[in-house]
Amino acid sequence: MRRTGRMMPNLTHFAVATALIALPATAFAQTIDVAALRDAALKDELAWDITEGLTTEVGPRLAGTEAEARARAWAVKKLTALGFSNVRDEPFDMKTWVRGAETLEVLAPFPQPLRLTALGNSGATPATGLEGEIVYFTDLAALQAASEGSLKGKIAFVSHAMTRTQDGSQYGAYGAVRRSGPATAAAKGAAGILIRSVGTDYHRNPHAGGTGFPDGVKPIPAAALSIPDAEQLERILKRGQPVKVRLTLTPRQIGTTKSGNVIAEVPGSDPAAGLVVVACHLDSWDLGTGAFDDATGCGIVAAAAKRVMEAGTPRRTIRILWAGAEEVGIFGGKAYFDAHQGEKHALAAESDFGADRVWRVDFKLPDSAKAVSERVASALAPLGIARGRTPAGGGADIAALIASGVAGIDLQQDGTRYFDLHHTPDDTLDKVDPVQLRQNVAAWTAMLAVVANAPEEIGSTK
Amino acid sequence: MRRTGRMMPNLTHFAVATALIALPATAFAQTIDVAALRDAALKDELAWDITEGLTTEVGPRLAGTEAEARARAWAVKKLTALGFSNVRDEPFDMKTWVRGAETLEVLAPFPQPLRLTALGNSGATPATGLEGEIVYFTDLAALQAASEGSLKGKIAFVSHAMTRTQDGSQYGAYGAVRRSGPATAAAKGAAGILIRSVGTDYHRNPHAGGTGFPDGVKPIPAAALSIPDAEQLERILKRGQPVKVRLTLTPRQIGTTKSGNVIAEVPGSDPAAGLVVVACHLDSWDLGTGAFDDATGCGIVAAAAKRVMEAGTPRRTIRILWAGAEEVGIFGGKAYFDAHQGEKHALAAESDFGADRVWRVDFKLPDSAKAVSERVASALAPLGIARGRTPAGGGADIAALIASGVAGIDLQQDGTRYFDLHHTPDDTLDKVDPVQLRQNVAAWTAMLAVVANAPEEIGSTK
Repeated sequence: MRRTGRMMPNLTHFAVATALIALPATAFAQTIDVAALRDAALKDELAWDITEGLTTEVGPRLAGTEAEARARAWAVKKLTALGFSNVRDEPFDMKTWVRGAETLEVLAPFPQPLRLTALGNSGATPATGLEGEIVYFTDLAALQAASEGSLKGKIAFVSHAMTRTQDGSQYGAYGAVRRSGPATAAAKGAAGILIRSVGTDYHRNPHAGGTGFPDGVKPIPAAALSIPDAEQLERILKRGQPVKVRLTLTPRQIGTTKSGNVIAEVPGSDPAAGLVVVACHLDSWDLGTGAFDDATGCGIVAAAAKRVMEAGTPRRTIRILWAGAEEVGIFGGKAYFDAHQGEKHALAAESDFGADRVWRVDFKLPDSAKAVSERVASALAPLGIARGRTPAGGGADIAALIASGVAGIDLQQDGTRYFDLHHTPDDTLDKVDPVQLRQNVAAWTAMLAVVANAPEEIGSTK
Repeated sequence: MRRTGRMMPNLTHFAVATALIALPATAFAQTIDVAALRDAALKDELAWDITEGLTTEVGPRLAGTEAEARARAWAVKKLTALGFSNVRDEPFDMKTWVRGAETLEVLAPFPQPLRLTALGNSGATPATGLEGEIVYFTDLAALQAASEGSLKGKIAFVSHAMTRTQDGSQYGAYGAVRRSGPATAAAKGAAGILIRSVGTDYHRNPHAGGTGFPDGVKPIPAAALSIPDAEQLERILKRGQPVKVRLTLTPRQIGTTKSGNVIAEVPGSDPAAGLVVVACHLDSWDLGTGAFDDATGCGIVAAAAKRVMEAGTPRRTIRILWAGAEEVGIFGGKAYFDAHQGEKHALAAESDFGADRVWRVDFKLPDSAKAVSERVASALAPLGIARGRTPAGGGADIAALIASGVAGIDLQQDGTRYFDLHHTPDDTLDKVDPVQLRQNVAAWTAMLAVVANAPEEIGSTK
């Protein structure tokens, strides 16, 4: 494959020059008017239709549950009706956790209920609740610094204020409290742990999300308070009296169930040119209907693929991957990689950061395909999208592909309000801005039209 | 009292002319610098302190419950500590309703949970829920037009979209669905009723609120869906298939319990001049902590009264009324009127519409006190407050006083976002803007300083 790339280095300039000239399709390049496709996509209705349909006719679809299975059936039917090829559900087994009751009562000094939600993989309290005194930590480092055994019988509360950013980059640092805080507290003997939701809104909506416990550490009840509730608990603690609470969480591990990846294709004219995978995830957290996370992503990639398909057979096969079980451990992405890593992948991209406008494009392409990135960047510029300097890393479901050397393009979405909605009950259809959603479809259509039809070889980045 | 007013018509101009001149206090007029008091109040901290304290140390305080009793105890302690006189809790009996479990599951055609909350005085379903088919009505008129018995065994769903306005005037028209829709549906044989929340936000927070059933009509389960959930149900219905749900609401009428009005005073120098009542309500709906509705109101009126008290003994006694049980039937306002209507009231005013800036002042004063309204309007103008042409009607707790002929002043607050928060879980401290809260205190301080010290008689408006 790399050899083929070396055979046609001069084709890159040729492709730029001919991109807008109507020529008969060849095995190398379907010549299409990228700008016209892009601009037509600014009137797209399909991404909305998919988002509306999935969120209305399925709603919440927690990985491994019957609701996610209904989402897969819905997806197969929808993608088939849209005219895609080779539509199928590729099932895999997973260990599944489901939510139970979840309440928190402050018992003293100021009795009142607070709102929270269990973190994925949280342990359970007795059905009648667990009573304990709160031990407050300002951040994860403070919790980590607590001495062994100092939390015995106590309920840790870790607060921290994530900041709103356009690129969502605070999620890495502040998400750590959710990902590793519970295991840390458990190791120190805590009976339970509460965290301030990893989010930026001020509504009574806690943010769900996964946590984990290493082998040998028994899971403890672990939950996120909504941000107004976390600040309320901080105010109560600041009065200086011991704060006693009753925490009730009754989630369950229900054993092994099925999830699956739904796949559909636009067959290309040149099987040797490698696949272009465009991904999203079909599962959602269970509190909202997963509109922003990630029905819109599925709508965007499918709408773009359909537009490129309708412009004529592309050189490369476009493979749509609506991954299962992303939220709870990227199980779908792993299953896809295990099953398909042996196939030739030219490029992968994923839409999984809401549906606000794309503002930046990042690339990870081999040097031989430098001209492809230039043509993509040129096609995106009229949409207000600048070229970034960060190497593309892919969304979670394609990260293993990218890490293995498959080229990637990240169409970075504006995340300013993403963490207002992320994993909350508020992630519902009404939050989607149809105008920004269409800009996403236009960006993806332009990118996909260029990449799927690029005459250049797109080989490994390694 | 009117006779005294006729004896000093020329004093009105005298009072304007001397308002800024330091003179010894007389039985007629405490001469104070209203502008200086007003401007100092723009740095007020007390209204915030009261709001923060009540919402943190008590939290939700549903009328008639133990939580409301704790709020009264808190209030007596706080108002005493602030140096007010005659601080007391005036208890009264009320019939009390409390919330239970509340869930809604769409069973077919698209199984999913929807979020709702029971309306006050709602009937209960069996603990295992009530299954029924939805019958959709676009508005209250459509429900009213349904034929008798046509809803037998069905669950009515009434949708309607309240519009955001600065003066909140849509609440009258759209609140009718909540107030009378359940009784209408019950009379037609419905097994239950769901309404779209009376509100303007797009969060998964249903808006609580009271409803009622006339004698002879058995209460049915009645609940409000959050606005995103109401729109989701509409989308599901638009697919045209029968929509079956399981509704579970287990509220209870717990019989007669105590509520009470907390009262505090700034004694005036001239008992014959009549009382000035400044009111708010202490109870709240149970989903939030009642910050905007109405802890801020209590903070505003108390902070203003304290500032006027500290400027010197006013002519008129200022009576602070933190009313109980407003939300569930204005029981506190009625109890106050029954107990105190025989006393001479010069004027009443209430703060019960959040804590965003005052933008308009409305008056209902006897002609003999026309100069008082002119001085109040002049003192408020620098705060960006214009004079309205609508007669003041008072908040709910003082409406009976105003209707009986007591003069009133309404300091109208900007309600643009009020119905985003009203009766929802989101009515929490973080929603209060300290800068706008202080503008309220400044407006109330100026109004109260003028009215409590006005040398004019303020007699009946009848």
